[in-house]
Amino acid sequence: MGRVTQRTKVTVVDVSGDRPTSRSRTDTVTVEEPLELRVGGTPLTVTMRTPGHDIELVHGFLLTEGIIRDAADVSLARYCEGAVVSGESGFEENTYNVIDVTLAPGVAQPAAELARNFFTSSSCGVCGKASIEQLRARTQWPVRDDATRWPAAVITAMPERMRSEQRSFDKTGGLHAAGLFGPGGELLAVREDVGRHNAVDKVLGWALLSGRLPATGCVLMVSGRASFELTQKALMGGVPCLAAVSAPSSLAVETASDAGMTLLGFVRGATLNVYSRGDRLRFP
Amino acid sequence: MGRVTQRTKVTVVDVSGDRPTSRSRTDTVTVEEPLELRVGGTPLTVTMRTPGHDIELVHGFLLTEGIIRDAADVSLARYCEGAVVSGESGFEENTYNVIDVTLAPGVAQPAAELARNFFTSSSCGVCGKASIEQLRARTQWPVRDDATRWPAAVITAMPERMRSEQRSFDKTGGLHAAGLFGPGGELLAVREDVGRHNAVDKVLGWALLSGRLPATGCVLMVSGRASFELTQKALMGGVPCLAAVSAPSSLAVETASDAGMTLLGFVRGATLNVYSRGDRLRFP
Repeated sequence: MGRVTQRTKVTVVDVSGDRPTSRSRTDTVTVEEPLELRVGGTPLTVTMRTPGHDIELVHGFLLTEGIIRDAADVSLARYCEGAVVSGESGFEENTYNVIDVTLAPGVAQPAAELARNFFTSSSCGVCGKASIEQLRARTQWPVRDDATRWPAAVITAMPERMRSEQRSFDKTGGLHAAGLFGPGGELLAVREDVGRHNAVDKVLGWALLSGRLPATGCVLMVSGRASFELTQKALMGGVPCLAAVSAPSSLAVETASDAGMTLLGFVRGATLNVYSRGDRLRFP
Repeated sequence: MGRVTQRTKVTVVDVSGDRPTSRSRTDTVTVEEPLELRVGGTPLTVTMRTPGHDIELVHGFLLTEGIIRDAADVSLARYCEGAVVSGESGFEENTYNVIDVTLAPGVAQPAAELARNFFTSSSCGVCGKASIEQLRARTQWPVRDDATRWPAAVITAMPERMRSEQRSFDKTGGLHAAGLFGPGGELLAVREDVGRHNAVDKVLGWALLSGRLPATGCVLMVSGRASFELTQKALMGGVPCLAAVSAPSSLAVETASDAGMTLLGFVRGATLNVYSRGDRLRFP
């Protein structure tokens, strides 16, 4: 399963001088492979992800989509034995790209359309407001009253701390990361993926399986932008603060404000922007 | 529909000095809103996108998912009249967030699961190879024999040219962009979105509606990373070259190599990396 990165041939072209130069070398790229999630044998979704921490990914996805509410809601999660391809060896090989989840008795099987399309159940219109309201109805751990406060300097140190744990980024330049930090600013878990929603699902899946949810007092740091989807995932994990290295979207700001979640953006160097609930920051 | 950006209040915190400072100001964020796509009145998918060029987005999505093959396959695409919410004015307002597409007679209605999950029809295993093979079967315009060659310096100039046309990025720092460049390096269209797949769908939808597909001789430039999904979309549009400002994934490299598409990454300043079919680059 050590397929996080892969070697590939690359030609580096430089047109800066009088004569363009090109040289060949081997380069490392991030592995991207489909993961099919089946629930009770029925295909639910396929996500393009970086292999590794797949069991966490699946738990995080099921939690943040509202299909499970607790680790005990999954009675079994395993790579599907029938998922084989004919490998270069000529033998059939398990691709480790299909996971079958058996839900515990009493947990409702998801509708096939649920995972990607839960907004559509809003009857006639679909707008940001409807999305926020649907999310509010699904959140089991409100974050509004989380009384944790973090020194601002603890937050601004997080991207560097997260980067120091990213094993693959330096090699490829092509990975998103998500990290969960505890109330004292300690790093609890970092996960990387070609898809930032997958990196977040892996971290929250880790937290679920480690008995760390709701993530009271925690900060979820993401390497890219803060979208509605990531805000939604943080809320479904009971995380009171989402911090992003880059910009938030309008709907991320509205969702965080509505939920009473702290939303921080452009966390770079010694500065950060507060978009919601800055009262949770302490100086120093 | 001028809702590409939105003003929001932000507090800028700086912890660099002896005493942390914070000041309030208004900031501009990228608008993110759900767009529901219905086909023949049946909800097919919801995507979180930046409003604007929605008709192009829908056409690009339907094309790159293999649901339509031609602009004439859509007989009508319009904002759903019933899609209203009660606005702040107290009156019902069209949200402009639901588009209903009527397919032309003879065009198969998509299965509800098709759009997001087309990989799952691979019978027992799901791997990168299966994804590439499925894509190969769906591509109507092979790019392998496209004989266009571009001077390398024309390619390296594209990100700057694209950036100069990005109206919202400078304001928000939070938008992905995709640009289609013609065989001579001329910029044909640029589109921006919070989702990079949406930016690509908008550009390819524009090309479809402008009679520019297959995009023979064209270069599709994207502001971020090159994933399988973007490679797939480029191939579905008959684009012979995908160029990315950042890194490609393993499956993007494999897909491009398999299809005979030129794949370029890290197109920055005077340099670029060639991952596939570098024979289409000319010096100078």
